[in-house]
Amino acid sequence: MLRTHTNGELRIEHAGTEVTLCGWVQRSRDKGGMIWVDLRDRYGVTQLMLEEGKSSAEALALARGLGREFVVEAKGVVVERLSKNDKMPTGDIEIKVKELRVLNPAKLPPFLIEDETDGGDDIRMKYRYLDLRRNPIRESLQLRHHVGREVRNYLDKQDFIEVETPVLIKSTPEGARDFVVPSRMNPGEFYALPQSPQTFKQLLMVSGFDRYYQIVKCFRDEDLRADRQPEFTQIDCEMSFVEQEDILNMFEGLIRHLFQNVKGLDIGQVPRMTYADAMKYYGSDKPDIRFDMKFVELKGEGVDLTSGKDFQVFDAANTVVGICVKGAAEYTRKQIDELTDFVRRPQIGAKGLIYARVQADGVVKSSVDKFYSEADLATWAAAFNAEPGDLILVLSGDGDKVRKQLNELRLDMGTRMGLRDPNNYTVHWVVDFPLLEYGEEEDRWFAMHHPFTSPKPEDIPLMLAGEFGKVRANAYDLVVNGVEVGGGSIRIFQKDLQSKMFEVLGFTPEEAQAQFGFLLDAFEYGAPPHGGLAFGFDRLCSLFGGTDSIRDYIAFPKNNAGRDVMIDSPSPLAQAQLDELKIKTTV
Amino acid sequence: MLRTHTNGELRIEHAGTEVTLCGWVQRSRDKGGMIWVDLRDRYGVTQLMLEEGKSSAEALALARGLGREFVVEAKGVVVERLSKNDKMPTGDIEIKVKELRVLNPAKLPPFLIEDETDGGDDIRMKYRYLDLRRNPIRESLQLRHHVGREVRNYLDKQDFIEVETPVLIKSTPEGARDFVVPSRMNPGEFYALPQSPQTFKQLLMVSGFDRYYQIVKCFRDEDLRADRQPEFTQIDCEMSFVEQEDILNMFEGLIRHLFQNVKGLDIGQVPRMTYADAMKYYGSDKPDIRFDMKFVELKGEGVDLTSGKDFQVFDAANTVVGICVKGAAEYTRKQIDELTDFVRRPQIGAKGLIYARVQADGVVKSSVDKFYSEADLATWAAAFNAEPGDLILVLSGDGDKVRKQLNELRLDMGTRMGLRDPNNYTVHWVVDFPLLEYGEEEDRWFAMHHPFTSPKPEDIPLMLAGEFGKVRANAYDLVVNGVEVGGGSIRIFQKDLQSKMFEVLGFTPEEAQAQFGFLLDAFEYGAPPHGGLAFGFDRLCSLFGGTDSIRDYIAFPKNNAGRDVMIDSPSPLAQAQLDELKIKTTV
Repeated sequence: MLRTHTNGELRIEHAGTEVTLCGWVQRSRDKGGMIWVDLRDRYGVTQLMLEEGKSSAEALALARGLGREFVVEAKGVVVERLSKNDKMPTGDIEIKVKELRVLNPAKLPPFLIEDETDGGDDIRMKYRYLDLRRNPIRESLQLRHHVGREVRNYLDKQDFIEVETPVLIKSTPEGARDFVVPSRMNPGEFYALPQSPQTFKQLLMVSGFDRYYQIVKCFRDEDLRADRQPEFTQIDCEMSFVEQEDILNMFEGLIRHLFQNVKGLDIGQVPRMTYADAMKYYGSDKPDIRFDMKFVELKGEGVDLTSGKDFQVFDAANTVVGICVKGAAEYTRKQIDELTDFVRRPQIGAKGLIYARVQADGVVKSSVDKFYSEADLATWAAAFNAEPGDLILVLSGDGDKVRKQLNELRLDMGTRMGLRDPNNYTVHWVVDFPLLEYGEEEDRWFAMHHPFTSPKPEDIPLMLAGEFGKVRANAYDLVVNGVEVGGGSIRIFQKDLQSKMFEVLGFTPEEAQAQFGFLLDAFEYGAPPHGGLAFGFDRLCSLFGGTDSIRDYIAFPKNNAGRDVMIDSPSPLAQAQLDELKIKTTV
Repeated sequence: MLRTHTNGELRIEHAGTEVTLCGWVQRSRDKGGMIWVDLRDRYGVTQLMLEEGKSSAEALALARGLGREFVVEAKGVVVERLSKNDKMPTGDIEIKVKELRVLNPAKLPPFLIEDETDGGDDIRMKYRYLDLRRNPIRESLQLRHHVGREVRNYLDKQDFIEVETPVLIKSTPEGARDFVVPSRMNPGEFYALPQSPQTFKQLLMVSGFDRYYQIVKCFRDEDLRADRQPEFTQIDCEMSFVEQEDILNMFEGLIRHLFQNVKGLDIGQVPRMTYADAMKYYGSDKPDIRFDMKFVELKGEGVDLTSGKDFQVFDAANTVVGICVKGAAEYTRKQIDELTDFVRRPQIGAKGLIYARVQADGVVKSSVDKFYSEADLATWAAAFNAEPGDLILVLSGDGDKVRKQLNELRLDMGTRMGLRDPNNYTVHWVVDFPLLEYGEEEDRWFAMHHPFTSPKPEDIPLMLAGEFGKVRANAYDLVVNGVEVGGGSIRIFQKDLQSKMFEVLGFTPEEAQAQFGFLLDAFEYGAPPHGGLAFGFDRLCSLFGGTDSIRDYIAFPKNNAGRDVMIDSPSPLAQAQLDELKIKTTV
């Protein structure tokens, strides 16, 4: 090895040892005949020291010529520092350099290689290999490695087998858009990249593999929103001879293991919430329950505290629903206006916002005092269990729509009130998702999870009776801090039921056979009951890291146009390559 | 859980326990009012037992209806067997069944689900999910999981970090053909699938990651030969601040760890052989050294034991070289003819084969007695250290060509003599590969390993002087039983040398910049000395499994036409999909 030690390991007890270190120049100072160089590698920083008259002229000259990010090898002796730095683990010592060698010089980097950098997103992505030198990014990828290792530790102990499924598979019309790959050996035909190994893991269950997992790249050719990547990584799992309860227990165990071993946190039991309750109390299928602010209906099914007072807005709405923000009664007019502007943004789409403050004296003052008496407003406050100092925020409109709007407001209020600390974790399941949802635009039913999800056995009669909207699925999501980090279902394992499902989704029997014949066939050769789930690995890592951005947890991410700006990809192909593939571009 | 135990875990000490088992019907017998069913899962087989008059009529009827591969749930009590079966771990017990439930019936499988099956390759691939139920295939994939886990155990302990590199990258003209992926968001442009993460792992070294690995899918669009797959898995590794010696030591350690922990074998030190010696003594850069039969030259550089005896064939050849096969002097005329036919096959291409037997009395008899006296032949025997009972086989012709022919003969003789036991392992390095090789057809130089491989520092002057054929690389292969399981190199880390390398390979500076500008740029911002290697994971697993076929170690392999016959892929795309991608097929 060129080096004897890393830059993170030398301590006072090494004093007197001859060492050779390698690394990058973080910074250097030249003062009063002394030169100090901070040498950095993945493991830490160690200070080098050279002294006029004591170090060789050659080493001194080299040291004076060092720029930021030069790659250097230094031989010398570990000595105790005069002025120690207790902020760094190696801060008690420095290296009295005898020999210095520049392994490679460096141009001045286009941005600072520091925890807080001056580089914008674009330049950091173009020079991602420099961005990766910064501690926060390096630590993100180290965390990712750690999470992956702990996932494997847990699942291996539970008798899961990691099996690799193919990347070159077959395009299917259901779901998101596929990336495709022309086949040179089969001209005119294409492979597709998997959106998930779903059908393969089910076939592995038919094969008797019983407990499967894979940490695997998946691909979706969707228009990219912030924090979506065309390629992403899943922790993909499947089990046989299980019911939903078994899956929930097994993967509660996984998530508990990860929190324990990665974060040192005991998350305790993982509560469960039905989809219906999640929508009712939070207007979201992935509620952030780090804070309360549950929805309370002033008007809705079996309740009406607003009608008959000539307030047209509420009278015209089928739903009046609000949240109670503890201790926010002091919000100024300006702050309330901001909230109103927030809910009126086109992507939220509420018409307006009604508020009511509970004053210190218990009297409720509202923006609709004109219509509602003090006694009326007191019934509101009671419905919310509101106390003096609380602020009630109310939206009105059409059931599901207004709930989604209120969800946005609730999350915004949570943030404003400082209730969404990324280092405070809540973990819970959402269960009993609907099996199907209606697509207005396409005028047909879609699988809410995917076409292989089993209806609840007790709801199969509803499905057969055509009451598709009422059928609940044996499907579940795991939610951490209001983010869906995983989801799955018990699968259909009977050919007839699977065929029925394809029929409901609008497949002809021929189409179903052409696309999924291998799976339907497999179900006839002894398919066991099975189910599973997949976690978004990138997302899970970012949650453990305490940030919202998954990009920092991906070594070489793509931008929102699906481009890797560092390697400049995608790019045009040579004509000969297209000819060989027997394809043509039509741009 | 549906089951309380697996089919591999019940023993005599469980007698009396109420259990529920699930699995597949391996076979059933119905005899004298008794029904026995062998129930199989991944963990083993357990015998179920039902008895006329004791079991319920319902359970008996169900049991009588069971076919092979039905999926069954059985509740009952563990009892000691009357006639024990010591061939199976659960052979001391059986389950006296109280309740039986068919979870899913099964059609008769198209081939036997047994260790030795009656199914041909095609039918087993079409129903791969059934083939995977067979013990040998299941065990192959379990072995693969085990090898993967041990790879990670070793590398994690050595401070390597697993980093995922992208799958959607950029097409490069050098090397094998790329699979490409049209970009919908960037019409007319394409991603490519990686043949290896080579440039990305080098960038990770520039980033300071220092020790990287990844178990990663790679892709090559080559015409498939037997046992080549378009997608395959590599154990990809890279280290910084190292020299070749450090890499060899680190990965000797890995391979030693794997043999120890997967096979329970101590392989001891891993010997090294230069490429020059490998070619000289074995005619191959991946010699199988499980057996000796080293090449001996009768005519070549500095030796000539054949000229001047009027044997035109040898006189016209620049090289006469042979092997000595211990104890094969008794080979019959017919067997020798077979060998002659073997070396004359077009894919080997020798003109003929000369033999010499060392008789029990020490006299050497040869097929060229006409030209060579007993004394002449004695000098041959001495050159080979041949003893009574040995057979000498000799080929002649042009240096490198004849060596390659003799390599084939040597391997064939090793097989014939039973010297190539797949469970007897030899592991060694081949080092000092040439940097460049000349492509006659294209009339240019090619990188023997890849364009990022460093020449040996002492050979750089040869490179600059244009003596490309003489330049040795800091490149190395790991060979197990005559199979290359891994290879790598110390990389170029200086921009100038890398540019020179691209120039030698025929790139214009503009082409080099367009293709690899990101890497050349990266080398200017502080690139450390680095190197690494990659192992073929599929191949490594097949070697540990003691077979030649990698297919058994891949869950869902493709056939020689690159097709997955199970899912019927590749396949044509819908016109709308092509339109959206702005491509057209030209078939």
